[in-house]
Amino acid sequence: MGEAIVLLSGGLDSSTVLAMVRDSGYEIVALTFDYGQRHLRELNSARRIAKHFKVKEHIIIPLDLGKLLKSSLTNGTMSIPKGRSKDDIGKGIPSTYVPSRNIIFLSIASSIAESRGAEAVYIAANSVDFSGYPDCTPEFIAAFQKTIDVATKAGKEGRSIRVFAPVLEKSKAEIIKEAVRLQVPLELTWSCYEGSVKACGKCDSCLLRLQGFADAGMEDPLEYEVR
Amino acid sequence: MGEAIVLLSGGLDSSTVLAMVRDSGYEIVALTFDYGQRHLRELNSARRIAKHFKVKEHIIIPLDLGKLLKSSLTNGTMSIPKGRSKDDIGKGIPSTYVPSRNIIFLSIASSIAESRGAEAVYIAANSVDFSGYPDCTPEFIAAFQKTIDVATKAGKEGRSIRVFAPVLEKSKAEIIKEAVRLQVPLELTWSCYEGSVKACGKCDSCLLRLQGFADAGMEDPLEYEVR
Repeated sequence: MGEAIVLLSGGLDSSTVLAMVRDSGYEIVALTFDYGQRHLRELNSARRIAKHFKVKEHIIIPLDLGKLLKSSLTNGTMSIPKGRSKDDIGKGIPSTYVPSRNIIFLSIASSIAESRGAEAVYIAANSVDFSGYPDCTPEFIAAFQKTIDVATKAGKEGRSIRVFAPVLEKSKAEIIKEAVRLQVPLELTWSCYEGSVKACGKCDSCLLRLQGFADAGMEDPLEYEVR
Repeated sequence: MGEAIVLLSGGLDSSTVLAMVRDSGYEIVALTFDYGQRHLRELNSARRIAKHFKVKEHIIIPLDLGKLLKSSLTNGTMSIPKGRSKDDIGKGIPSTYVPSRNIIFLSIASSIAESRGAEAVYIAANSVDFSGYPDCTPEFIAAFQKTIDVATKAGKEGRSIRVFAPVLEKSKAEIIKEAVRLQVPLELTWSCYEGSVKACGKCDSCLLRLQGFADAGMEDPLEYEVR
C-alpha cells in the first residue's frame, strides 16, 4: 500500500483516525495546520502523537488566518461557550465554528496528496457527538469528493484522491473504545478549546469528550480543572 | 451593495475581473496569495492594480506550499513549457498545473467572505483560451459552490457566499476588449510564468496573451523578450 495523508490536530478523534489508518497498512504523512487556533497546545499533542506512531513525515503548515476569520477559536476577543448542556451543544452552530475550515484543510491536503502521489486523505470529521459544524457532515465529504474529482488532474485521469472520514458516524464513546483498542496514548491527546495547563472541562469539546468517556465506562487520563 | 472578495493574481484576467466587479458597484476586497509561484513579479502587479482601482482592502496571504507541491510554477527544478503551439496548449494538463490551487484559493476566500459578511467571491478562471487546468471549468465552479452551500454556516442559513467566474467562457480577445473598455491599466498586469524584467514571450501564458491581443487587433503594452 502507498501513502495516505492524515489530518492530525492532536485531538482525540484525529489521533484515533491516525491509528486506524496505520492499522490499515498505509504509510502515513500527518498534516497539521497552525492557523491561529487558541489551543496551540494541540500542536504539541499533534507532534507527540505523530512521533508516537512513527509516521513517515509530519508536515506542519503555518496558515495565519487568525485575524481574518470570525471565530472564537482564532479570535481572542470572542468568548468560547462554556457549560452548555448536551442538548444545547447539538443545536445551532457555535462561535467556535471556523468558516470553511475543513474545506481549506482538505483542499491543501488533496494538493499535497496529488503532488506526492498519495492515494487518500483522512479527516476526523464527526457528525454524531459534535458541535453542529456544517463541515463535519456526510454531505460535505461527498461534495468535496466531487469537487476534487472534477477539478484535479488525478480526478480527470480517473485516479482521484479518495477522501475518507472513518469516524464520521461514530459516537464519541465508540471513538474512545476504538482508540483504546488501537493503543492510542490518550494522555497525549488534547481536545480542550483553551490552551491551559489542564483541560477546562467546560467548553463544548471538553464536555463532549468527558461524556464520551462516561458513556464508554472509562476514565479520561487527562487532568481537568473541573469535571 | 455590500462587499465582494476578488481573487487578484496581478494577471490580465483577474485585473479585468476586478474592474468588472468595481463597475457593478460592490466594495472590493482584493485577495492575493504568495504561494511560492516563480513569478513573484505578479505580486507587485497585484499591488499596483489594487492601488489603481482604490480597493477597500488588499489582503496578501503567505501560503508557503512551494516545496510541497509538484508544479513547475512553484518548483524551480522543473521546467516551464516554452514555445508550444496553440493546439498543443489546449491538450492535456501542463507541468504549470498546481494541484487544487483554485480549490485552496476559493476556500480561503469563502472563509474570509463569510467572516466579513461579504456576499460574493470572484475568480478569474477561464476555460476558453487556457492551459487545460481542470480547476478552471464550469464543472469545478458548480462543484465548489455546492460544497460551500452545504458546508458553511452561511450556506446552511440560506445566504451562501456566491462564487462568480465572469470570464469563464470568454476568449482572451474578449477579455482584452473588456479590459480596455473598463480602462484596466494593461501595462501594470503581468501574465508571464517567469519573473524576469521583460515577459518571456514563450511560456503558455505569454503565448495565450499575445494571441489574444492579436485576435483583438490590439498591441500589448508590455515589453517582451521575444514576440
